[in-house]
Amino acid sequence: MAMVNAFTAEDFARLSPEEQNLIERRQRVLGTAYRLFYERPLHIVKGEGVWLYDAGGNKYLDAYNNVASMGHCHPRVVEAITRQTGILNTHTRYLHESIISYAEALTATFPAALSQVMFACTGSEANDLAVRIARHVTGGTGIIVTSLAYHGLTSAVAEFSPSLGEFVHLGGHVRAVPAPDSYRTAPGEMAERFGRDVRAAIADLKRHGIKPALLIVDTIFSSDGVVADPKGFLKPAVDAIHEAGGLFIADEVQPGFGRTGDAMWGFLRHGVAPDMVTIGKPMGNGYPMSGVILRPEVVAEFGEQARYFNTFGGNPVAAAAGMAVLDIIRDEGLQANAADVGTYMRRGLQQLRRDFPQVGDVRGAGLFIGVEIVSDPAAKTPDAAMTTRLVNGLRERSVLISASGPNANVLKIRPPLVFSRDNADTLIAALRDVLALL
Amino acid sequence: MAMVNAFTAEDFARLSPEEQNLIERRQRVLGTAYRLFYERPLHIVKGEGVWLYDAGGNKYLDAYNNVASMGHCHPRVVEAITRQTGILNTHTRYLHESIISYAEALTATFPAALSQVMFACTGSEANDLAVRIARHVTGGTGIIVTSLAYHGLTSAVAEFSPSLGEFVHLGGHVRAVPAPDSYRTAPGEMAERFGRDVRAAIADLKRHGIKPALLIVDTIFSSDGVVADPKGFLKPAVDAIHEAGGLFIADEVQPGFGRTGDAMWGFLRHGVAPDMVTIGKPMGNGYPMSGVILRPEVVAEFGEQARYFNTFGGNPVAAAAGMAVLDIIRDEGLQANAADVGTYMRRGLQQLRRDFPQVGDVRGAGLFIGVEIVSDPAAKTPDAAMTTRLVNGLRERSVLISASGPNANVLKIRPPLVFSRDNADTLIAALRDVLALL
Repeated sequence: MAMVNAFTAEDFARLSPEEQNLIERRQRVLGTAYRLFYERPLHIVKGEGVWLYDAGGNKYLDAYNNVASMGHCHPRVVEAITRQTGILNTHTRYLHESIISYAEALTATFPAALSQVMFACTGSEANDLAVRIARHVTGGTGIIVTSLAYHGLTSAVAEFSPSLGEFVHLGGHVRAVPAPDSYRTAPGEMAERFGRDVRAAIADLKRHGIKPALLIVDTIFSSDGVVADPKGFLKPAVDAIHEAGGLFIADEVQPGFGRTGDAMWGFLRHGVAPDMVTIGKPMGNGYPMSGVILRPEVVAEFGEQARYFNTFGGNPVAAAAGMAVLDIIRDEGLQANAADVGTYMRRGLQQLRRDFPQVGDVRGAGLFIGVEIVSDPAAKTPDAAMTTRLVNGLRERSVLISASGPNANVLKIRPPLVFSRDNADTLIAALRDVLALL
Repeated sequence: MAMVNAFTAEDFARLSPEEQNLIERRQRVLGTAYRLFYERPLHIVKGEGVWLYDAGGNKYLDAYNNVASMGHCHPRVVEAITRQTGILNTHTRYLHESIISYAEALTATFPAALSQVMFACTGSEANDLAVRIARHVTGGTGIIVTSLAYHGLTSAVAEFSPSLGEFVHLGGHVRAVPAPDSYRTAPGEMAERFGRDVRAAIADLKRHGIKPALLIVDTIFSSDGVVADPKGFLKPAVDAIHEAGGLFIADEVQPGFGRTGDAMWGFLRHGVAPDMVTIGKPMGNGYPMSGVILRPEVVAEFGEQARYFNTFGGNPVAAAAGMAVLDIIRDEGLQANAADVGTYMRRGLQQLRRDFPQVGDVRGAGLFIGVEIVSDPAAKTPDAAMTTRLVNGLRERSVLISASGPNANVLKIRPPLVFSRDNADTLIAALRDVLALL
């Protein structure tokens, strides 16, 4: 999907005077780094549940934004933030009940060994902290990631986020292994192949005199193109990093909080035991918060020595927002809903695959779905141009999704977890419509 | 001031059963990194203006917390956050009016050359981004900081935050120069000495084959012990880094937003022109937000190439909170109040200095005040033990301050900007009381 920061004269002329004015002001004051979705950007002014509304009163089905996983402006989250913001917002150097209760409720959703949490504000900060801890405890510096991984934007994390592109250099201590590809690999070979690639990366690090510190993976491989199955394929790779004295970090910023349907956390689908888990995005349904869940023995010495303090991390408002999110997931059965609607949606998409040869593969778990678009289904040839046209075609039909993958040819469907079967029908009907036209 | 994460049996026994329970649960779930202020920690449950309230209904005068610079739970900030959280909270890849208006209002408080802003969530993220940009545009990696600087906690920023202590190693590309010390240096020598030290660091970087990228200073030198005067002493150092092809970054996370009274931003007091300015803490009066203000030509290429996107940075709620803060500073005249009450408070503290030989020096700007405590005023011998006793003595009298500086002997007085002359009288009377007793 095209992200735009400079418009062609033709595209720009198509926009309304109000949009043109906003874009000009935006470019002047925010500069070159800020991109907009779509050649026809959306001017969104309101959100509610799975719906976003633009300035003209048009309504869009949001099948993309995972931050608002509880639905946009969920009343219980709004209420929690409102209430606590009016009472107290300070930091963790005073005692406060709510951050402790929240930390207890949060860690209770993890295997017992992962019993502690440290709070930050963004997924980038969480991954940056996890790396600091891993280096401290292992004495190593080597990092293994997948070939199009995205883990964040700090200096240290950008160095192992190859999806940032050619201008953001990987660190000399970083090894990117081929991402697992369930479309082009037999299910029986997925685990062995990924394990072998990680072992090779470990050997290469050692050959360069670099001690491995960690393997980190997004357990749904979002930017690598969404890879969910077969369950368990992570195991040999995790064993390999452990044998090499490194840690395994599960980046659950995208798959976490019930999205995969099978489990609260993506790594549980694979039956592996992370040393640390990083979480973020939907954690406060939009309130800036993130965390690292860890085994006490991993962090004990670092904690004593490093004087880590995050001014905003774990403040009382974050605790209130985070607790509301956990309550909503439980009370509204959102993990089960993700499983149910996700399965339903994949079934509908499989029907599209049978009807349209461009739909090469349908995959995912729960409400994290990838649809691979190809020009030749036999050769599985990626078709990025067609993918962009589908994303834009859906936008013209008021359905918002995105694309990812090494060849930018995987439709990324990642709606709020309150998405219904009806919503899935709407999405599939719109996609069928666009496919039929192209 | 003591920060505590493990209590002596004696100290622990003095706490209430409720406090003991909270601390035990906290240590279990948050682990070793989390420190509490005071041997008798505060269990704060409510905040309003300059006041914090504990669970027992006791009220504390807050002369420490600069995040809540508009006062705790300022109604206009609460209202702005509440309203926008209920309408829409999404990101900068859709068009939204408020982030543009806010960015325009914010950059309007800077010299015209600093016309663009990029948003993040924490001061650490802002400094981390500034470093990425500086390295990109200069091609250098060398960083010069002061000897007890604190700029943040990401991997990259911790490497140039010497105040984190011996266990957090400085980077090989980092040079820490002696912090300016207005108590032990003649006013006429401050500028020349700091400039000379920065020049020496630049020469040393070059001698090691390291190209200088930047000089970064907190323009009030908070963790270095609060150094404000003489105005203008930064100029030769800034000239030196510019001559060496590096950038000057003003870290305004602490002095910014009117706190120094003389100006909205601390660097303006020194008449220097930063290439980038980082801001945070009070920016949203507690809402997690930060930013880098920059000259367009500094960021143009990095912006095009680096794919920087901060999920929560610059979201509509942050824009609403940030705009409320700018409005309050203007409508309530908080910069002028900081100047007035700051001058009034320093006058009162100077009187204490005449009455008590332990008070060696009173300094600062606006409502950022340092009071250096010494055992021998003639020799200016730092007295950290006495400083801790004063901080704890004030806490027993329900006044909250802290300490900083290389010898932990500088009282750090940094209240919300709504602090009144009456509040200053309360603080000074309490401090006189403690000094008289010790």
